[in-house]
Amino acid sequence: MPNYRIAPSILSADFARLGEEVRNVVAAGADIIHFDVMDNHYVPNLTIGPLVCEAIRPHVQVPIDVHLMVKPVDRIIPDFAKAGANIITFHPEASEHIDRSLQLIRDNGCKAGLVFNPATPLHHLDHVMDKLDIILIMSVNPGFGGQSFIPEALKKIAAVRQRIDASGRDIMLEVDGGIKVENIAEAARAGADTFVAGSAIFGKPDYKAVIDAMRAQLAQG
Amino acid sequence: MPNYRIAPSILSADFARLGEEVRNVVAAGADIIHFDVMDNHYVPNLTIGPLVCEAIRPHVQVPIDVHLMVKPVDRIIPDFAKAGANIITFHPEASEHIDRSLQLIRDNGCKAGLVFNPATPLHHLDHVMDKLDIILIMSVNPGFGGQSFIPEALKKIAAVRQRIDASGRDIMLEVDGGIKVENIAEAARAGADTFVAGSAIFGKPDYKAVIDAMRAQLAQG
Amino acid sequence: MPNYRIAPSILSADFARLGEEVRNVVAAGADIIHFDVMDNHYVPNLTIGPLVCEAIRPHVQVPIDVHLMVKPVDRIIPDFAKAGANIITFHPEASEHIDRSLQLIRDNGCKAGLVFNPATPLHHLDHVMDKLDIILIMSVNPGFGGQSFIPEALKKIAAVRQRIDASGRDIMLEVDGGIKVENIAEAARAGADTFVAGSAIFGKPDYKAVIDAMRAQLAQG
Amino acid sequence: MPNYRIAPSILSADFARLGEEVRNVVAAGADIIHFDVMDNHYVPNLTIGPLVCEAIRPHVQVPIDVHLMVKPVDRIIPDFAKAGANIITFHPEASEHIDRSLQLIRDNGCKAGLVFNPATPLHHLDHVMDKLDIILIMSVNPGFGGQSFIPEALKKIAAVRQRIDASGRDIMLEVDGGIKVENIAEAARAGADTFVAGSAIFGKPDYKAVIDAMRAQLAQG
Amino acid sequence: MPNYRIAPSILSADFARLGEEVRNVVAAGADIIHFDVMDNHYVPNLTIGPLVCEAIRPHVQVPIDVHLMVKPVDRIIPDFAKAGANIITFHPEASEHIDRSLQLIRDNGCKAGLVFNPATPLHHLDHVMDKLDIILIMSVNPGFGGQSFIPEALKKIAAVRQRIDASGRDIMLEVDGGIKVENIAEAARAGADTFVAGSAIFGKPDYKAVIDAMRAQLAQG
Amino acid sequence: MPNYRIAPSILSADFARLGEEVRNVVAAGADIIHFDVMDNHYVPNLTIGPLVCEAIRPHVQVPIDVHLMVKPVDRIIPDFAKAGANIITFHPEASEHIDRSLQLIRDNGCKAGLVFNPATPLHHLDHVMDKLDIILIMSVNPGFGGQSFIPEALKKIAAVRQRIDASGRDIMLEVDGGIKVENIAEAARAGADTFVAGSAIFGKPDYKAVIDAMRAQLAQG
Repeated sequence: MPNYRIAPSILSADFARLGEEVRNVVAAGADIIHFDVMDNHYVPNLTIGPLVCEAIRPHVQVPIDVHLMVKPVDRIIPDFAKAGANIITFHPEASEHIDRSLQLIRDNGCKAGLVFNPATPLHHLDHVMDKLDIILIMSVNPGFGGQSFIPEALKKIAAVRQRIDASGRDIMLEVDGGIKVENIAEAARAGADTFVAGSAIFGKPDYKAVIDAMRAQLAQG
Repeated sequence: MPNYRIAPSILSADFARLGEEVRNVVAAGADIIHFDVMDNHYVPNLTIGPLVCEAIRPHVQVPIDVHLMVKPVDRIIPDFAKAGANIITFHPEASEHIDRSLQLIRDNGCKAGLVFNPATPLHHLDHVMDKLDIILIMSVNPGFGGQSFIPEALKKIAAVRQRIDASGRDIMLEVDGGIKVENIAEAARAGADTFVAGSAIFGKPDYKAVIDAMRAQLAQG
Repeated sequence: MPNYRIAPSILSADFARLGEEVRNVVAAGADIIHFDVMDNHYVPNLTIGPLVCEAIRPHVQVPIDVHLMVKPVDRIIPDFAKAGANIITFHPEASEHIDRSLQLIRDNGCKAGLVFNPATPLHHLDHVMDKLDIILIMSVNPGFGGQSFIPEALKKIAAVRQRIDASGRDIMLEVDGGIKVENIAEAARAGADTFVAGSAIFGKPDYKAVIDAMRAQLAQG
Repeated sequence: MPNYRIAPSILSADFARLGEEVRNVVAAGADIIHFDVMDNHYVPNLTIGPLVCEAIRPHVQVPIDVHLMVKPVDRIIPDFAKAGANIITFHPEASEHIDRSLQLIRDNGCKAGLVFNPATPLHHLDHVMDKLDIILIMSVNPGFGGQSFIPEALKKIAAVRQRIDASGRDIMLEVDGGIKVENIAEAARAGADTFVAGSAIFGKPDYKAVIDAMRAQLAQG
Repeated sequence: MPNYRIAPSILSADFARLGEEVRNVVAAGADIIHFDVMDNHYVPNLTIGPLVCEAIRPHVQVPIDVHLMVKPVDRIIPDFAKAGANIITFHPEASEHIDRSLQLIRDNGCKAGLVFNPATPLHHLDHVMDKLDIILIMSVNPGFGGQSFIPEALKKIAAVRQRIDASGRDIMLEVDGGIKVENIAEAARAGADTFVAGSAIFGKPDYKAVIDAMRAQLAQG
Repeated sequence: MPNYRIAPSILSADFARLGEEVRNVVAAGADIIHFDVMDNHYVPNLTIGPLVCEAIRPHVQVPIDVHLMVKPVDRIIPDFAKAGANIITFHPEASEHIDRSLQLIRDNGCKAGLVFNPATPLHHLDHVMDKLDIILIMSVNPGFGGQSFIPEALKKIAAVRQRIDASGRDIMLEVDGGIKVENIAEAARAGADTFVAGSAIFGKPDYKAVIDAMRAQLAQG
């Protein structure tokens, strides 16, 4: 069995007591804190920035995984690194100089990754596999509410899994959008190993029960 | 004595326990919660958006005063109104249609205002005094750290006070940037009646002591 | 009595038979055809461009008065001149080089003007009075539907009238937004001499009756 | 023989009598009205918007096929749906969230499609075949005048035909740019089934003669 | 007599031997080297950047006066300071945070100034006189060729002279555009003390003769 | 042996005596002058524009190869053609209408090409091979200093070489970034035939020695 990781998105947590929320979800078994940054330009919403990342940093030891839904990306990358991020991902459409942005993330001591919108083709991977620590496949359109898991994402995850295996590199394959107990195993079978879940976890009273149920599904394979 | 209002900026609060922070600062005497929104485009920083506003709304009864350091502004105004904002201000440089943006804020049930950067001239007030509930004078450049109170702001506050008095309208005159116990009285004498303070309050252990000291300064005139 | 001009806006005409519409409205007494160009960027709407201007040009002899609600403006100015425009106006916020854009309009054989949004201050007139053939005061926010005449516009018209008279120049003073039989005289008393009307004319079955009623109001002063 | 469709582009019609023009061209055998929207930003020209679409809607029963040469696209999509459009297509370069824009078109009750500029590669189709009702291949560069049919477009049409057939889906394959009686059969042989023609139809006195000649060419295969 | 300064613009020099050109023009009596930076965005032209400034720096001792016709301005200011600039000016329309940009120039060890396009009103001076070392009045539209001196600039220079004198501060008043031997005295009488000249100097075989003639004109007053 | 070409980039030359520099480097054996244009928007740097190209034009007979690191590209293409450029290349991300931009370059009498950033995939070549005279592969990220040759570029060069050979067309294959005597043969073996070198040539006292050493490496194969 691969090393599966559950990454709750704090976008669905209670922003009035974020420190407590992230401590609780890590105590409940979360492997990673997923941190969604929107700038009201790349997506039509504005969420949270480096100051919030810095505030939750002392509350947990697990990696903080910053998903930049901003454009452009270079100026804000060092801010998030200083604020305690461990992983930083961005969309290829959001940087004129993708290779350089990936290198900038690593130069700031973080793991680097690319995020693919549902319609974005995978060819952006062609020449940067050696610069990637993580690939994030969106199974909904980021920044828009009320969407459910897009089935096409499973084919895309499978295609990325093939690319990663062919590269022989250690690259995480994360999926984000509509993941819940009912479909997490399917995403894992397609090839994902890291699972972002928002309301599926923070929307329930017992975080541990949800995460345990997810792990049970993953264990069944 | 005018009806002075102290408006702590939650930008300096602990984002890991914002609910508690705003309850505490209101218990300590704050009249308004000041909410700084930056989008990494109009200013080189990204802070907090509507979801955070919605999260703190149930914790306090005082008005939430949203300062939009974003460009453009129209799309996000209804989001903040729905999230519980009571006052929304924006920069005249950030909207092509200032009169319409002001009207949009009021149509969404909020008080509307314009914010003036240190170098921005006051002529943007010439034709909209009847659409304004508040005018905010920046005494530092928004979005950049490590600045102190710009003295020219006092002259500007005085000039705005004259315009407000001449209009005969009930318009709040707010100042934001480097305000602390030592200079709040001077800003009041220039004509301000609403005072944003960030680290001066949230950076100290005893919020009530600071707010009381500010009120004492204001009472002395 | 000044030389008053009625300028029906074809934005309210039937776009399926524009040639007939402009012939009819000119036969009914219109002095000018007002042509509203929106680009879905400067304003949130997209209307009609140079090809439509060119198509109606042979149908009438009166001036075609093109109001550019586009940003930027320089590239499209020669297109409209070639398409038969006689007057071209633009918003000062929509050009980095206002003096140059005004000169470009005149170099293309058209009369040139600036348009002022309801909140836009008049200081943009300070250094270009000798480059202006027309000044257009918006009494609604352009590009947004369902608005009525903004009373502040009357004060603004009066202020522009003073500037024009002080300059000793022959500059038209046009008003656009919510003009109808009931308020045209008030706008004229404030100093306007050219009146854009859309649905007030094209929304009625008898264009001549409306235009005659407007002239009657203007004659009463 | 496939179900071929002739789609005259009203960009070449007489804008002074559009209602009559579209009625005439439908009477002459047109299957679709093609509607070219340019915003002076995505392409250096500005043509016609939703108001014009709404005006011609009552004059014909055939589908109105709106080709958006605008950027961004999401805000204006509902406007065209309300104005009576049946098909809406856009360029993948013009939306940050292609999957979402396609879904937005369908949610507004229209058929959705992507348009490919002459140099745009086809990989944008990789993950959205199930969201497409139409694919439009440009055989000239949109928004620029005086071009002739680009031969490379034939290879591209053939490649798209293969993708459509492989998908087993019912997706229209439209071609736009320099289509006339002389080359329509060649485009059909490459795999196109829907043919936009502008001046080839509206530039001739007898629309029916042209459309009949086109159909004769298509029938010969 | 004021301390008049002649500032040849190297935009008219021979770019194939710039070092020699600046040495020659300084030997001929130039007080300042004026350096015009255009970015093909704020103005429709692209000229020279920091590398060129750095290259000429060792060739002369006089101040290098960098006029930024770029937008935005903050990122490139430190580059020019490092490249040896002594004065940096920018257009108020080109920065969202004018006060901050001025301070940034001074923090980088240079003199700071604002530039006014022919139509730009002077109110941008209202709140920053204490941050200015120089004010530059454009007497042509920057970035466009083939223009002559705009007479309105004389009134504007006079108005700025009044503001400077009223401030009691030591602020240079520079004029740029169409300055030559024939009109330099008139600009000086209006209040300018620093004169940019391009082709009037570099377009002539004998730089010293031109500069001497300019000084003679200035001496006559 | 292919027809190898050495193309020194004048970005590393002495800008104070460019005429002399280009004469010297051509005398030392350079086949082409490579001219790097940056606009502070597409890349965070601003270098040199058409005026500088025009100034060096009379000093050499070899082709001037203009690499546009600007966005957008169409407006400035004719300027460079008039200034004496022989080859003009641009990035596919920098034009909305790539096919048209390529055609525009040829219409202005120059050879046309596309440039690929390190992460940019090659599919942009799919439909324009017949419009290309040159393909430029970046082996560093353009516009950022202090980088070394990115090894992935070798695979990319090999892939482009295959595409060119398969096309049967005469297309130059240029590489730019970190090229020096030590690695030029490796780039040639991968398939490149034109080699940009900046500091490797201009940073050494004897240009001829470097170029001779490069040719020796190329001759060994």
